[in-house]
Amino acid sequence: MKATIIYGPRDVRFEMRDDPKIIKPTDAIIRVSATCVCGSDLWTYRGINKIDQPMPFGHEYCGFVDEIGSAVKSIKLGQFVIGSFFASDNTCPHCRAGYQSSCERKELVVGAQAPFLRVPLADGTLVSTPGIPPEDLIPSLLSLSDVMGTGWFAADAASVKPGSTVVVVGDGAVGLLGVLSAKQMGAKRIIAMSRHASRQKLARDFGATDIVTERGDVGVAHIKELTNGVGADSVLECVGTKEAMMQAIDSTRPGGSVGYVGVPHGVELKGEELFWTHVRLHGGPAPVRRYLPELIDLVWSKKINPGKVFDLTLPLDKVADGYRAMDERRAIKVLLRP
Amino acid sequence: MKATIIYGPRDVRFEMRDDPKIIKPTDAIIRVSATCVCGSDLWTYRGINKIDQPMPFGHEYCGFVDEIGSAVKSIKLGQFVIGSFFASDNTCPHCRAGYQSSCERKELVVGAQAPFLRVPLADGTLVSTPGIPPEDLIPSLLSLSDVMGTGWFAADAASVKPGSTVVVVGDGAVGLLGVLSAKQMGAKRIIAMSRHASRQKLARDFGATDIVTERGDVGVAHIKELTNGVGADSVLECVGTKEAMMQAIDSTRPGGSVGYVGVPHGVELKGEELFWTHVRLHGGPAPVRRYLPELIDLVWSKKINPGKVFDLTLPLDKVADGYRAMDERRAIKVLLRP
Repeated sequence: MKATIIYGPRDVRFEMRDDPKIIKPTDAIIRVSATCVCGSDLWTYRGINKIDQPMPFGHEYCGFVDEIGSAVKSIKLGQFVIGSFFASDNTCPHCRAGYQSSCERKELVVGAQAPFLRVPLADGTLVSTPGIPPEDLIPSLLSLSDVMGTGWFAADAASVKPGSTVVVVGDGAVGLLGVLSAKQMGAKRIIAMSRHASRQKLARDFGATDIVTERGDVGVAHIKELTNGVGADSVLECVGTKEAMMQAIDSTRPGGSVGYVGVPHGVELKGEELFWTHVRLHGGPAPVRRYLPELIDLVWSKKINPGKVFDLTLPLDKVADGYRAMDERRAIKVLLRP
Repeated sequence: MKATIIYGPRDVRFEMRDDPKIIKPTDAIIRVSATCVCGSDLWTYRGINKIDQPMPFGHEYCGFVDEIGSAVKSIKLGQFVIGSFFASDNTCPHCRAGYQSSCERKELVVGAQAPFLRVPLADGTLVSTPGIPPEDLIPSLLSLSDVMGTGWFAADAASVKPGSTVVVVGDGAVGLLGVLSAKQMGAKRIIAMSRHASRQKLARDFGATDIVTERGDVGVAHIKELTNGVGADSVLECVGTKEAMMQAIDSTRPGGSVGYVGVPHGVELKGEELFWTHVRLHGGPAPVRRYLPELIDLVWSKKINPGKVFDLTLPLDKVADGYRAMDERRAIKVLLRP
């Protein structure tokens, strides 16, 4: 099959590689209906995360079960399924505690930007939809594989509750879906930090009540002004830079929570500073698997429409164009159809 | 009056200074029944925290209300009261959220190692006992002013719940009272990290089920072994060094919580490492005022006896001996009686 390979900085190719095969009896092969480009892969695309050799690329997917290993019990051929970017057994103590992305047997799913994909630990990883989805639900269902699950985790980790005042740092797809998540969890006020008109508009569509365009200390001062000097109950950090993390911490009220899901790059926290803020910190790679049943339900019943973050759809063989559009911030999130 | 002044590293003197006076109408003057030496003051005593000039010392106290300012309404002359080391108005948004040690008007209480003490914001800061306490309750009531409230906050910040597996890093008075707090909150298993026989014994008296004597990576490995490789639900970090903080984080299960109350000195956290641990972090200066009513009740009804951490009692004029005993770790916690 032809599939996506990254060779180095800004060098993404769509070319022949071997079809994926069942390697372990717990594997499944998925015929991919839709996949997409992730903001976290831009670290590699931009050469900030180094790679030693060409790598199959992409980790977001939904599609039909095409083949299963001999030990797969609950997942059936022909089902439409969604899974996380981390395969998990869903039975170990960390999985049972709801942290499937720290599963004792976790494996990264790689090579999703392809017509076919091998998913390890299929029974623990994949969740099927109630039926074959109509075409218009595909983008939203795809988003649950990572970006929506990650925005949801950011809101959950930041303890968003009915009536909360929430700040979202970062107007990428995860941040925007953090806004949607906070809204769905009942936040009363949602302040999105964004400088881009198209992203501000989507943030408002998803439930943002206020937009703050400033960053750093000036941005924090604006948040304080909007919250009577108190700060926010919950802040979602959806970038991963030191500036974004400090902006998040400084925008939070004492006893409030920062949920951070941007993969940290160069973030160092001084213990003494953190101590005096009284801020709660929780984050990490989103345990998407925990949320899949609930989020599939919300999408299926059309209560949420996270698929709106996809503002560019391309055929899979144009994947390199998709990366360029994301890198140059011309697109919020690029959907790819094999 | 004669009172305690610190002049510099290991130079604590008991000498004449002015009696405290009402400065603001919201102040009260307390006739101190008991005070003590705090582990956090050892940073100053050892010269790690620098001081520019001689300072009145001590911040833990209980005693009788001797004088009140004209604006004091709820606190009455002659009442026996306990207050936190941070005075707070108990009405601002941070206080109402339970974070009185981040009060918008907070003031450090200083000079408690003296016969008389000025306490700012008396109505918001002081809590009276149900009556004049019997002599045997004085140590436990005094402990609520800081050390017991801080151990309790560590357990609360680490989300200790009935049935939890808890690790306590640090066998100073705060750590030991963290053990007592975890026990009171219903922890099933409490692993105290301690190398000292007398402290191990007190930890067991307070409810520790296991003792781990190793530190660093070896200590963490022992914790993992005791928890079937999973890690603890809740870890109380009661030291403040980088080693202790990393030991705490590495001992926690994904999704578990570290409650940190040791004032951090030289602690730097790498965002990326923290991200992959999935650990929740919460801590800071304990909001003692929030817990005072509940803890007074528990002491008054003899359900807890935190005063057992005081293993040396001295007359106040021997305060310098008290610091020496704490510095040399000959005493766990020194009680001083004016």
